[in-house]
Amino acid sequence: MKSSPHFAGPWLLEQGVHNEEGVVAMGSNFLCANGYLGYRGTFPHWRKESYVACVVEDTWDNADGTWSELSSIPNGLYFRVENAEGKALQTSTAPEAKSFLRLDLEKALLSGSMDFDLPESGRMTCSFTRLANISGIHLLAQRIVLSADTDCSIIAVVGIDTDVWSLNGNHFATLAKAQRATNAGPGIDMRTGQSGIDIALRQALLLNGTKPKEGTNFTIQEGIMLRPFHLDLRAGESVTIDVGVSIYSSRDLPTPQEEAEEDAKQFLEQGFDAIREEHEACWKKIWERYTVSVDSDDDAWGILNFNTYHNVIATPAHSDHLPIGARGLSCQAYQGAAFWDQEIFNLPGHLYAQPETARRLLIYRYKTLDGARRKAARLGFEGAFYAWISGDSGDELCPDYFFKDVLTGRKIRNHFNDWQIHISPDIAYAIRSYRIATDDHAFTVGEGAEILFEVARFIASRVVWLPRKGRYEIHQVLGPDEYHENANNNLFTNVQCRFALTEALETLQRLKREQPKRLEELTSLLQLEEQEIALWKDIADKLFIPGIDPTTGLLPQFDGYFDLEDIAPSELAGRLKDSNEYWGWPNGIAFETQVIKQADVIQLFYQYPHLYDKETMRRNYRYYEKRTQHRSSLSPAVHAIVAARLGFADEAYRYFLEAGLIDLYNSKPAISGGTFIGGIHTAACGIARQMAIQGFAGVEAYEGGIRFEPALPEVWKKLSFPFYYHGNRIEVTVGKKQARFEHKGKGKPIQLLLPEKAVELKAGESVEVYL
Amino acid sequence: MKSSPHFAGPWLLEQGVHNEEGVVAMGSNFLCANGYLGYRGTFPHWRKESYVACVVEDTWDNADGTWSELSSIPNGLYFRVENAEGKALQTSTAPEAKSFLRLDLEKALLSGSMDFDLPESGRMTCSFTRLANISGIHLLAQRIVLSADTDCSIIAVVGIDTDVWSLNGNHFATLAKAQRATNAGPGIDMRTGQSGIDIALRQALLLNGTKPKEGTNFTIQEGIMLRPFHLDLRAGESVTIDVGVSIYSSRDLPTPQEEAEEDAKQFLEQGFDAIREEHEACWKKIWERYTVSVDSDDDAWGILNFNTYHNVIATPAHSDHLPIGARGLSCQAYQGAAFWDQEIFNLPGHLYAQPETARRLLIYRYKTLDGARRKAARLGFEGAFYAWISGDSGDELCPDYFFKDVLTGRKIRNHFNDWQIHISPDIAYAIRSYRIATDDHAFTVGEGAEILFEVARFIASRVVWLPRKGRYEIHQVLGPDEYHENANNNLFTNVQCRFALTEALETLQRLKREQPKRLEELTSLLQLEEQEIALWKDIADKLFIPGIDPTTGLLPQFDGYFDLEDIAPSELAGRLKDSNEYWGWPNGIAFETQVIKQADVIQLFYQYPHLYDKETMRRNYRYYEKRTQHRSSLSPAVHAIVAARLGFADEAYRYFLEAGLIDLYNSKPAISGGTFIGGIHTAACGIARQMAIQGFAGVEAYEGGIRFEPALPEVWKKLSFPFYYHGNRIEVTVGKKQARFEHKGKGKPIQLLLPEKAVELKAGESVEVYL
Ligand SMILES: [Ca+2]
Ligand SMILES: [Ca+2]
Repeated sequence: MKSSPHFAGPWLLEQGVHNEEGVVAMGSNFLCANGYLGYRGTFPHWRKESYVACVVEDTWDNADGTWSELSSIPNGLYFRVENAEGKALQTSTAPEAKSFLRLDLEKALLSGSMDFDLPESGRMTCSFTRLANISGIHLLAQRIVLSADTDCSIIAVVGIDTDVWSLNGNHFATLAKAQRATNAGPGIDMRTGQSGIDIALRQALLLNGTKPKEGTNFTIQEGIMLRPFHLDLRAGESVTIDVGVSIYSSRDLPTPQEEAEEDAKQFLEQGFDAIREEHEACWKKIWERYTVSVDSDDDAWGILNFNTYHNVIATPAHSDHLPIGARGLSCQAYQGAAFWDQEIFNLPGHLYAQPETARRLLIYRYKTLDGARRKAARLGFEGAFYAWISGDSGDELCPDYFFKDVLTGRKIRNHFNDWQIHISPDIAYAIRSYRIATDDHAFTVGEGAEILFEVARFIASRVVWLPRKGRYEIHQVLGPDEYHENANNNLFTNVQCRFALTEALETLQRLKREQPKRLEELTSLLQLEEQEIALWKDIADKLFIPGIDPTTGLLPQFDGYFDLEDIAPSELAGRLKDSNEYWGWPNGIAFETQVIKQADVIQLFYQYPHLYDKETMRRNYRYYEKRTQHRSSLSPAVHAIVAARLGFADEAYRYFLEAGLIDLYNSKPAISGGTFIGGIHTAACGIARQMAIQGFAGVEAYEGGIRFEPALPEVWKKLSFPFYYHGNRIEVTVGKKQARFEHKGKGKPIQLLLPEKAVELKAGESVEVYL
Repeated sequence: MKSSPHFAGPWLLEQGVHNEEGVVAMGSNFLCANGYLGYRGTFPHWRKESYVACVVEDTWDNADGTWSELSSIPNGLYFRVENAEGKALQTSTAPEAKSFLRLDLEKALLSGSMDFDLPESGRMTCSFTRLANISGIHLLAQRIVLSADTDCSIIAVVGIDTDVWSLNGNHFATLAKAQRATNAGPGIDMRTGQSGIDIALRQALLLNGTKPKEGTNFTIQEGIMLRPFHLDLRAGESVTIDVGVSIYSSRDLPTPQEEAEEDAKQFLEQGFDAIREEHEACWKKIWERYTVSVDSDDDAWGILNFNTYHNVIATPAHSDHLPIGARGLSCQAYQGAAFWDQEIFNLPGHLYAQPETARRLLIYRYKTLDGARRKAARLGFEGAFYAWISGDSGDELCPDYFFKDVLTGRKIRNHFNDWQIHISPDIAYAIRSYRIATDDHAFTVGEGAEILFEVARFIASRVVWLPRKGRYEIHQVLGPDEYHENANNNLFTNVQCRFALTEALETLQRLKREQPKRLEELTSLLQLEEQEIALWKDIADKLFIPGIDPTTGLLPQFDGYFDLEDIAPSELAGRLKDSNEYWGWPNGIAFETQVIKQADVIQLFYQYPHLYDKETMRRNYRYYEKRTQHRSSLSPAVHAIVAARLGFADEAYRYFLEAGLIDLYNSKPAISGGTFIGGIHTAACGIARQMAIQGFAGVEAYEGGIRFEPALPEVWKKLSFPFYYHGNRIEVTVGKKQARFEHKGKGKPIQLLLPEKAVELKAGESVEVYL
């Protein structure tokens, strides 16, 4: 099988494994996860050299004194085969030997197979099926099937490998003492070294469907708790070994050991197949909401399914106090923490499919409001300045030093944590999007209002007034393009702030009209006075928004942008002295040029499709696109959507593929400025559906209805998807010549805004639109 | 003679020259200059390898496309001795051979002597006396006396060496064509390559007092225009060769060639001795005003004389449109241009001795106001933002890239030119000091008022208003300590700005009262409206001035200073990977620590001795002094003065020596971040007298009189100096137990403020103060 990942139909991802190259990316791409735990796509007998890891949500621990990250816990699915003398079988190198992984995206099942040479002659096949149970998120399950083409005596070794891949130190320094056997099987009780979180792991085992009498004792070798089973295997027959691993932490419940024990027992009672069926049924419901079907472009459909799969499994939808990690649960990079990616990239991927998940993500921001307040106060501001890297408390996890200057070995002081202020209005933007898409009044006037007011308050404390210019400005920021720190009047940031202020003011008006008591409660809680509200309004009115240059028709990314050296990214790259150099502030090669890391003005166009006329957007798109390096995984998808809207169909499709294949093609560097940043790019996964829906289908929620202006790629015959709006399921099918909107809900009629006219879509009815 | 520079009495500086080590510093220390041209202290037969150069004021030219600098013109004082066969005599290496330079500071005469081995046996002595005529600034004159201890035949070669030391390229690319003989002797007409300035040089020669008949023809060898004279020299007799070199540029006069010709002829007519006498008479008058006499510490007195000599010769007192270069005319470093050094360090050295020179320096700032206006406008501000490096037009000469990162070879973007805004209020401060010291009404309401209003206007356009804090702040600056760029609310800068605003407002009130017509003229010229003036007042009232921390009693250099790593400069130095690394922003080792390059808060104490109580100043002095690297030559003198005022007598004296010996001990690096910054530190020279006067004598002008609070160093018995105040000469003598103030003028009585009481000092009378 091909050793690069490829689709076998829209729902199957496959990859042949012939050597250890690319296993970092493979482990991430073939990940089994369920928003609580993530188990990397690795073979059962692999160890940390091959990046085996199981990352568990809400287990932040700072083991190396620098990076707080989710813990990588022992591998309870370890398995290997030995010959009768106890020597591990060698992977077969015969040309016809099989070795592959296969991820069923629809069922969220990973299977794989590998052939081993038997001692004398003949071959043994070790196949496995694995799942991270989504119907009971504390369970990993794996079925191993052994078969051979010769009769043989072997030892099947089931284990718990405590020596796993962990990015920044060992989180369980006292692990060695903790192994113990229990009724269900062996397990480990461990405690994270710095944060003191108790984690319990239990391993349950069924040999050919029954609990074996022997093998409850284990030995420890090279950090693995081992249970050996001597087996005589006949040619053509097979042995099945089912393992269930249950995991709980003291962050989930007060008694993780008891709960883990219980789940392990449950696994023994139910068995692998029953659990797999529950898991599949659950995924069926998910896909009913999330599937975007592409007619006649299976690879594109596969791309959408793959990315959506990863957005779903990265999202802790079971909770409302946990973030989506920038690399999800695929590894520990970026600390398992949320960036602005969560609101601007992941959240839209849920908003129109499962709005409840979007709400939970916003509640997470509500629950971390105190962290944002602490950050603002620490930096001398008011209100809520959200963390650039946000974990469980909302306190800033982003260190002052993120990268190293590879030329000097000195650390680089980046200001992601204190100058990248757009994170706060980004969250306000998501609240606004959520309001528009759901009309969830309770949230808007509840948690939403409180966040909005605190964000407005932060902005009001962060802007400066230029007395001689008679306007407010925002200085010393970095926008989405992180190469240009210390910028004044970043267009994206200023617009986001203005919208955040108007959203806060409108919400305030709404409360005044509809819920004066709630408003009273909030203003008293926040000590919000008329004078401050008047200031918000004044700022919203007089905040400087850099305008279109009348000569060039261009919008400046920030003050002075056009004075910077104008050079193509490819030419600029020639100035690198080391390929691992960081390109940005303060000394990187891009800082004093117009070369940008990622969409910034284009990002603005993505978020506000109707702020500028199309001609202006086209001109600026053309200008900035040439100067964009797309080093960030957030960039191509935004370009795809904006290009589609602007009528650059081929380019939009090209960017769609680039964005959708970031992880499969492993096209982003795993290391930048000396820091590991590999793993699944969950933001790109999150936004993938929106490339199809907002970009090609041209469907988006707006104040008062749904806009529709499609631009299907040449090769697509039809695109169909459900679109949840104000609690109603709308089934959308967009073809070449006609489109169909079916209102499957019971709510009010929905305004459908077409380029030429508006149409009313009534509950239970459908509308055909001729294109 | 000792090969390090040393004093032979308070007026004689000597240095033995035994090898070429240290000749860069020697050439600067033994400089002959007169504010128009500077000829380095080198031997007549030396060439560019030994840093021979003659730098001429107002000849800016950009030869290398990067650095605009004063031109280094051909060396008209070149001279060597050859044997009869035309081979140059070799410097004698005999142990008893002499080789030294001697600078008579009182007469501003450089003499030197060097012994050469004669071809067969015996030795020839070549002595010379040199002056840069201060009574006629376009003339260099040199007398050479040759003598031998054996009869010998030699060739004396008089020349013009066109191949001289020039820092940044050759300014006279077309020189070769330009040599020509004239009636007076040979000469060169040259034109600077980029700026197109015509410069004429003529060489006049007297052999034993008469114009030689032969030798008006010359040959060219190795870039030297040569005139050989065959001489037979008897043992014990001597030959005298007097050379006058006249220099004019088209910046001085429309016809530089004619003028140079005229001066050369004049030299032939007058002869060396007559010119020397005029020169000495002129210097006598200078020293009558500038001398600060120290009783019983000749080295300290020598230090004062040496530094004052250099301040005087660096100052283009003949003009009111030229700056004092940061390295004077000692070399081309720092572009022959003015920094804030001019107003804060050089100007006080003249203000109380020759106030007219101080006025001319301020007129220079008036004449460059348009350059400052252009700079402000270019950066988006109003009014006058003076150039950080200011040449003839006042346009910014400071390049964006000043240093290189020696570790990466990449240039460093420093923001001296656009963020170091204190230069504008510094000039306002000097205007204020000048007003207090001179009461020069015409200047105050004339040029002074216009500068002050434009500086106030600049500040008003540069501050920002924090609506939630209800105060103005100043962001993104660097203060005197240049290691910490991008600082907010630098205490020094904010205080300077507030004083600049109040000085402008008070001047405006004064105009309103005394000269309403002039005010009308100015407000109309500057389009100054009531609203803008009200804004100045509002800013002066509400500008944030960081206060004393109530817990520690410390004043923060800028926002967040105390959060930086606290480490001693010596320990920090251990982090260097290369001794030539630049320590400052953005990546230098000091940037994220409390280690500072030079006085900043202490600088504030120097400039405003009565803004804080002494206890506060002592505490802060102690804190900052430990953290100051004194990399800038501006730093030790400021510490000396403040330490003396605060009663730290030993420390003050130690800093006095350190500051006064900067050039003699060559204690500052000649190269920083790859850029040559050697030469005479004219700012340190300028402030030297003030260490004695403001520091140890404790004499300073204030609003309404003269303050007096002495703190003589242990070893000093008496300090005496003239002090010019409101047009009156006050002769001051400060002893251990008593002091005397004698009013030699005709003006009003002067208020003398002693620590305990005020005394009136009447014209023609004197006051004795018992200490
Ligand atoms: Ca990023
Ligand atoms: Ca400096």
